[in-house]
Amino acid sequence: MHKEKFWARDLKPGLSLRSTFLATDTAVRNDSRGVPYLSLKLVDRTGSVDARMWGLPDNLRGGLPEPEYVRVEGNTHDYRGTLQMKLNKLQVLDREDISEEDYLPATDQDLDALQAELWMAGDELGNEHLRELFMLMVSDAEFWEAFCSAPAAKSMHHGRVGGLLEHSVQCLRVARSLVDLYPVDRDKLFFGSIFHDVGKIEELSWGGGGFAYTTEGRLQGHVVLGDRIVASFIKQLPDFPKDLEMEISHILLSHQGEMEYGSPQQPKTMEALLVHIIDNLDARLAMFQETTANVRPDGWSHHENPLRRALYVPAVTGAVSEEAGFGGHDAEEQ
Amino acid sequence: MHKEKFWARDLKPGLSLRSTFLATDTAVRNDSRGVPYLSLKLVDRTGSVDARMWGLPDNLRGGLPEPEYVRVEGNTHDYRGTLQMKLNKLQVLDREDISEEDYLPATDQDLDALQAELWMAGDELGNEHLRELFMLMVSDAEFWEAFCSAPAAKSMHHGRVGGLLEHSVQCLRVARSLVDLYPVDRDKLFFGSIFHDVGKIEELSWGGGGFAYTTEGRLQGHVVLGDRIVASFIKQLPDFPKDLEMEISHILLSHQGEMEYGSPQQPKTMEALLVHIIDNLDARLAMFQETTANVRPDGWSHHENPLRRALYVPAVTGAVSEEAGFGGHDAEEQ
Amino acid sequence: MHKEKFWARDLKPGLSLRSTFLATDTAVRNDSRGVPYLSLKLVDRTGSVDARMWGLPDNLRGGLPEPEYVRVEGNTHDYRGTLQMKLNKLQVLDREDISEEDYLPATDQDLDALQAELWMAGDELGNEHLRELFMLMVSDAEFWEAFCSAPAAKSMHHGRVGGLLEHSVQCLRVARSLVDLYPVDRDKLFFGSIFHDVGKIEELSWGGGGFAYTTEGRLQGHVVLGDRIVASFIKQLPDFPKDLEMEISHILLSHQGEMEYGSPQQPKTMEALLVHIIDNLDARLAMFQETTANVRPDGWSHHENPLRRALYVPAVTGAVSEEAGFGGHDAEEQ
Amino acid sequence: MHKEKFWARDLKPGLSLRSTFLATDTAVRNDSRGVPYLSLKLVDRTGSVDARMWGLPDNLRGGLPEPEYVRVEGNTHDYRGTLQMKLNKLQVLDREDISEEDYLPATDQDLDALQAELWMAGDELGNEHLRELFMLMVSDAEFWEAFCSAPAAKSMHHGRVGGLLEHSVQCLRVARSLVDLYPVDRDKLFFGSIFHDVGKIEELSWGGGGFAYTTEGRLQGHVVLGDRIVASFIKQLPDFPKDLEMEISHILLSHQGEMEYGSPQQPKTMEALLVHIIDNLDARLAMFQETTANVRPDGWSHHENPLRRALYVPAVTGAVSEEAGFGGHDAEEQ
Amino acid sequence: MHKEKFWARDLKPGLSLRSTFLATDTAVRNDSRGVPYLSLKLVDRTGSVDARMWGLPDNLRGGLPEPEYVRVEGNTHDYRGTLQMKLNKLQVLDREDISEEDYLPATDQDLDALQAELWMAGDELGNEHLRELFMLMVSDAEFWEAFCSAPAAKSMHHGRVGGLLEHSVQCLRVARSLVDLYPVDRDKLFFGSIFHDVGKIEELSWGGGGFAYTTEGRLQGHVVLGDRIVASFIKQLPDFPKDLEMEISHILLSHQGEMEYGSPQQPKTMEALLVHIIDNLDARLAMFQETTANVRPDGWSHHENPLRRALYVPAVTGAVSEEAGFGGHDAEEQ
Amino acid sequence: MHKEKFWARDLKPGLSLRSTFLATDTAVRNDSRGVPYLSLKLVDRTGSVDARMWGLPDNLRGGLPEPEYVRVEGNTHDYRGTLQMKLNKLQVLDREDISEEDYLPATDQDLDALQAELWMAGDELGNEHLRELFMLMVSDAEFWEAFCSAPAAKSMHHGRVGGLLEHSVQCLRVARSLVDLYPVDRDKLFFGSIFHDVGKIEELSWGGGGFAYTTEGRLQGHVVLGDRIVASFIKQLPDFPKDLEMEISHILLSHQGEMEYGSPQQPKTMEALLVHIIDNLDARLAMFQETTANVRPDGWSHHENPLRRALYVPAVTGAVSEEAGFGGHDAEEQ
Repeated sequence: MHKEKFWARDLKPGLSLRSTFLATDTAVRNDSRGVPYLSLKLVDRTGSVDARMWGLPDNLRGGLPEPEYVRVEGNTHDYRGTLQMKLNKLQVLDREDISEEDYLPATDQDLDALQAELWMAGDELGNEHLRELFMLMVSDAEFWEAFCSAPAAKSMHHGRVGGLLEHSVQCLRVARSLVDLYPVDRDKLFFGSIFHDVGKIEELSWGGGGFAYTTEGRLQGHVVLGDRIVASFIKQLPDFPKDLEMEISHILLSHQGEMEYGSPQQPKTMEALLVHIIDNLDARLAMFQETTANVRPDGWSHHENPLRRALYVPAVTGAVSEEAGFGGHDAEEQ
Repeated sequence: MHKEKFWARDLKPGLSLRSTFLATDTAVRNDSRGVPYLSLKLVDRTGSVDARMWGLPDNLRGGLPEPEYVRVEGNTHDYRGTLQMKLNKLQVLDREDISEEDYLPATDQDLDALQAELWMAGDELGNEHLRELFMLMVSDAEFWEAFCSAPAAKSMHHGRVGGLLEHSVQCLRVARSLVDLYPVDRDKLFFGSIFHDVGKIEELSWGGGGFAYTTEGRLQGHVVLGDRIVASFIKQLPDFPKDLEMEISHILLSHQGEMEYGSPQQPKTMEALLVHIIDNLDARLAMFQETTANVRPDGWSHHENPLRRALYVPAVTGAVSEEAGFGGHDAEEQ
Repeated sequence: MHKEKFWARDLKPGLSLRSTFLATDTAVRNDSRGVPYLSLKLVDRTGSVDARMWGLPDNLRGGLPEPEYVRVEGNTHDYRGTLQMKLNKLQVLDREDISEEDYLPATDQDLDALQAELWMAGDELGNEHLRELFMLMVSDAEFWEAFCSAPAAKSMHHGRVGGLLEHSVQCLRVARSLVDLYPVDRDKLFFGSIFHDVGKIEELSWGGGGFAYTTEGRLQGHVVLGDRIVASFIKQLPDFPKDLEMEISHILLSHQGEMEYGSPQQPKTMEALLVHIIDNLDARLAMFQETTANVRPDGWSHHENPLRRALYVPAVTGAVSEEAGFGGHDAEEQ
Repeated sequence: MHKEKFWARDLKPGLSLRSTFLATDTAVRNDSRGVPYLSLKLVDRTGSVDARMWGLPDNLRGGLPEPEYVRVEGNTHDYRGTLQMKLNKLQVLDREDISEEDYLPATDQDLDALQAELWMAGDELGNEHLRELFMLMVSDAEFWEAFCSAPAAKSMHHGRVGGLLEHSVQCLRVARSLVDLYPVDRDKLFFGSIFHDVGKIEELSWGGGGFAYTTEGRLQGHVVLGDRIVASFIKQLPDFPKDLEMEISHILLSHQGEMEYGSPQQPKTMEALLVHIIDNLDARLAMFQETTANVRPDGWSHHENPLRRALYVPAVTGAVSEEAGFGGHDAEEQ
Repeated sequence: MHKEKFWARDLKPGLSLRSTFLATDTAVRNDSRGVPYLSLKLVDRTGSVDARMWGLPDNLRGGLPEPEYVRVEGNTHDYRGTLQMKLNKLQVLDREDISEEDYLPATDQDLDALQAELWMAGDELGNEHLRELFMLMVSDAEFWEAFCSAPAAKSMHHGRVGGLLEHSVQCLRVARSLVDLYPVDRDKLFFGSIFHDVGKIEELSWGGGGFAYTTEGRLQGHVVLGDRIVASFIKQLPDFPKDLEMEISHILLSHQGEMEYGSPQQPKTMEALLVHIIDNLDARLAMFQETTANVRPDGWSHHENPLRRALYVPAVTGAVSEEAGFGGHDAEEQ
Repeated sequence: MHKEKFWARDLKPGLSLRSTFLATDTAVRNDSRGVPYLSLKLVDRTGSVDARMWGLPDNLRGGLPEPEYVRVEGNTHDYRGTLQMKLNKLQVLDREDISEEDYLPATDQDLDALQAELWMAGDELGNEHLRELFMLMVSDAEFWEAFCSAPAAKSMHHGRVGGLLEHSVQCLRVARSLVDLYPVDRDKLFFGSIFHDVGKIEELSWGGGGFAYTTEGRLQGHVVLGDRIVASFIKQLPDFPKDLEMEISHILLSHQGEMEYGSPQQPKTMEALLVHIIDNLDARLAMFQETTANVRPDGWSHHENPLRRALYVPAVTGAVSEEAGFGGHDAEEQ
């Protein structure tokens, strides 16, 4: 059974709706008059919204301690600057009836367009060895499918199906915008910007059960796994220069920037340093965006987020580029 | 007396020359046959080169413990991948005869062109208040002259006359290249990118005696001093919105990124976060460039540099943008 | 409706009472025989006490998840060295009927006496510029009222209405007691001891809704805000010496002691160093006092407090000065 | 042979003198005209002064690599805000002819007066057990002599003969000035303030050969050694209460404040916390004083000092208490 | 009343049983169909097992917020790689009817055999002073009984009655196995390996009420307490060499390895360094073992354990020595 | 020309000798009578000794700023507990005449015996895959020769030709001695103990010019390089189990123990944890031994060593196993 209309990202104050979600973070609390109510979060692949329900039937008085698929009816409104839903009805659904992919967070960008953007970049690589390597990787169907569907993280940033592709393309765009400002090797920079996080496809698993670390991921980590993936493709190219392989490997291994973040070496070439900075730049701005997704102008986010500080959305924001953002609706929300 | 021809940046192996420099880091050592020689560094406003001299006259047997202006004659050659000069003659000059500015490190970029680039950016600011503020600052002759001649640091990066202007323009360029990729306020971002380090003009002194910290700089620091400078200009604009002033101040105060680096608050708005990242990006890439300025391909720098690690210049570097670099000759050296 | 008699600070074992409080930290638990009971904390402006209630009516079986104003009846007794109340009745009150200031923690010291102590200190300042500055600040009614009513922190120490005044006066007293032991400038030391935390009046908000950070406070922080407040008063005194302004500013900016605690510079003058130590001394001793307020002799506090360690109240404490303490009842409790 | 007149502390610009010192930190350098000169530091028990000598005889051309006792003749003058001596003659003396104690840094305070101040404080202890313990310690001649002559540190602060007594008395004075401001046990606080560093008498050795760590000091440290010394005295008092012994021991063991500074436990009683803060306060202010001893008004110290930052002496300092300071001449220098 | 059969360590999937346990960590949750159930942990002196109960009677709907002694009936099965029990009945028992020692975690090793192993080691000490000291300690009945029954920690590792003896014997075994590989003093190494943690007998209390820190333990810590215990025995041996006492004391004081872990000095002799490493080795391997006690092959532990990382039990483990392990059943579980 | 007799390790007080060494750390100093002398260190492959020379000829007055091969004549004596040589003659030798390997620090253990010990261990591996892998590695002549001649570090510990083999064998011995005490897989533990540092053979270069980091070593590090070496051997064994490969890789990657020391993951299996501890144990004990090699009983080493603390050699050391030590002469020196 597929999710019906009313996706989380389309909600706005003043709607009356009936839809299905994954209900998480549920708790039973009393309001200021001592009346108990259910507090919960409604999630689908496009986002999430907070909800409240009063007049609890017996089977809900204990809450829903584990995430459940639910059908709800209710109305949306603005509560202290955050969108909220007040529920009239809540019914737990059988897992068997559910299309899980409707409820797993996923990118809302056009995956085909993102892939096309990468291909074009690969096609334009001036160094023939890197171009050949790129083509070899892209044409490995199993690898490429994984690369285009993996999340970029379990929860830190871009934690959604297709998130790795989003992050890789955005890093490429940043690299492209900076390459004329500093004396770096264009091809090494682009290749590293695209594939620095490639090890995520083996470090993480994704699918019906949500995002999780694999045993291999926990024992080796995405930094080393990514280095190995690229090395195994290079091995198929007998003429690939040893020096170039060493440098590409260094870019992949050092992209976490510091040893305490899991890189066995700090960046020691201009290209490795810049790939690390670009990765960090896109990750931190994504954390900012994802944390403030539901914060209204002149409002503050919670402290509990990957940046470990409350974030502020200014009351007035001026001209913002139309193309900007991790996806269309994010930019519109600004 | 002005410095004669043969500037440090124009040196290459195989030259026979006669010129004047500031001699620093001198020491008398014995070579492998037990013969004493003088080791020193020859500096002028365009850069520096290592030198050696054998057959020491009596007055040089003790070396030159303090920096001295000298006239030298000798030949240049490549020694283990680094340019070196072998001296035949060395004569100490009277300080009175010297044009000190010839020996104080200075940018080799076109200051007029850099200023023009800033003016144009200011002219294009969409927010009328920020544009008005920018114009007010630019038209304060004393302030503007200081801004255009100050170094960006004593020694970390851009430690040269005009370095602050170089750094500010380069940060603006990076901001300009990123602004369409993320949903940030264009005007706040540009203003912050240009003026985040403005407090350096009061934190540092520069002139004949080299670069130094002022008492004010040591007691207050450039973060607070810069915030005050901008605040004093805003005070002259009675209609400047309070909210905007608060946000601009936050960008300036938080641009060091973390409290332990001297920012009383971490960045908490998208614009403040991005200005911090841009400042950091340009600073680190400049440290890389300045540290490897004399390192030949497939060579390693020393450990003692602001990045606290040996840096590698690859044996082969492919296509590098012609416009790239902190200045023409740096890019060429690559 | 104002709070009736029986304030928290007057409670002792063996009382039978009926009063109103703010009920916080409520939870429903089972006792060792499996019987459910309500555990909660009863707060008013003079302090707090732990309470238990058995025989729960239906509307209390779910607890009170948010703080509520309540009317209670019950008896007090000593439980394992801590005062506790056993409730017979608990009734939730309407917020409309409440005088919120009765339940907001507030100093129990004589605000007029504290202010008088400050005025006298200001009057005795030997440096005419600092004395003039002090008088200007004191005579700004709006500023002065804020200074005398603000809390010194949200929760770390002196988190109560009037707490900033308490802390400032106590720091002055410490400064006064130390000034003859070290060669410091008396006037700068006293001024800094009194006003180092003045930025709290803009960093925090207080009133009916409790203590909170303002947006300005989160974006700029009390260190910079305090420096600006004093600077704006100095600006009204055209003859104020530049050097003195720089030093006073340094004392205010550096009073957190280290950059990682939010000071853009470390203390670099004798007076700045001593003001920082005095601030720290009074803050830590206050944390100790507030954490052990309800601990009986030979007892241990919890770990969760600003000093992050369990604190011990000795079994026997000898002569304690009659004047000592943050307020009369604290000293008596020892 | 005893040192002749002209002690380091009595020097001022414009004197012509002939005296003996310990010469340290010597180096041969060339001046700006290329002329070699000797740079050195002249030390005696009252302080030190920098010196220069031109026209070097043959035996001084290599400098004095190890500290030597010397007889010098020359003139004093002010050089860039620091007192300096220009030497005409320098003669190395035989170690046998020297009274070493004339050249070992020593307190210039009246040791008898300091002891008398301690005795009086001991006599006034209200707790009979602590008073008895104090008397027992004072009447142990060997112990007491060590306590009154030991330095308080090798080089951090109070690194001079009698320095431990100075520091202990000053901590007592601070404790006395604070005791009425906080609800602490007067006797425990005073005892702990006096004896917290008593372990230094076994951790350090002092005498002709300068200050050094003992093997016991390096293997056990002054924190544990001090605790043992007091425990061994308590063992002689059969009626000493166990609880009191435990608390006194806690004060001694925790006085470093944090485990990483060598205390096996953090302070967990009010008295232990205050003793730690007092020790820290006096130590840091002494570091400040000792570092700036030769800095003129509006001048900056070097970075290399126990506080690890350049320190500023304001241009103008107002009223300073006549009694203040670590000793008469320090206060006068202000 | 003593605990009946079916001890935690004997449980395996497929049993139907009726027994008594200490029930901890209870919570009421809803399953995926919305049905509430009780989740709890059943503990006895041999170990623990997770349990679930559906069909809750009224008195269990609120859970058991504090640990309770219970009689349960149910069946065991394997749930996602972890042993679990499904309960049909649960009845709270009166504390008076309970033999608490049946439920306090305790070693399952043969205490007599462990003691005998220590005695033999003591008997073989080559240094007569250390042998005499060892004999003196062993023959102090009160001390020895405490040493043989104390836990080695509250919860980090070996947190069970007899745990200190287990840990001490295992450290001795490791020392014995390493002593021929490095040039260390055999007797000092063995003595230090056995008694480095002796202070635990005063730092901790154990008995009916579980494991807790004593006031003495919190104020002085086991490092100093242990050093004092050994010193008090040495005091009874007038001929004990001072040097040896100093070295033994150093081994005890430095065994935490670093100051931030509570040692007032770092290890500075070969023997002290090795005792620290041995203590650390056995502690960390015990943490690993205790954390993975219920993890099945190819499974991962939780993150929340003293090593602060998820731990992996390989799918296949080859030859493991039959003697290995902290006790027989641990090794068998592998 | 090969080095003549009198190797550094054979020196003792009271010898008169004539030999050749590498002279390092030379400096010209004045003695207490003002007489200049040469201070230097004489090195050969067996160790080093400090030396002094008075009555300097002209060509030595400036010292030897770079290491030189020299022929010396002189006498040995004990100076303040350290062996020293007083030279009568010193002559610089031509580099061409030198057998460099005589002066490069090298193990003095029997390399054949060490290799035989490893082979036997490999032969006894119970797991056929690991045994096959071991045999494959041992029979690769080029690899094996590198493994048996590489140093284990540039300077931290085992920094000598053959040092990696020494360290690997000693780790194997420790593993062998511990394996029966803990429930670990014997074969994985032994394999990991032997080969955890195998990446050193590519990270470091050794030979005539001393020990240095390779470019590959600086860009990838020995952790990743070692993992790749073993993986490339495994690739030649098609039946090698995937799980086993993953676990072996985890042991190699995590052997530094913490991410900040260059391991991309912390140890998460029992075997990985133990290999890390064993590596650390042997490294730290070797640092201790190498630092105190020239320290006499009851003496202290310098602070500047890899353990960053002064180390103590007790006055009396009892029974030390005859087999113990990193090599025969080390043990004898104790």
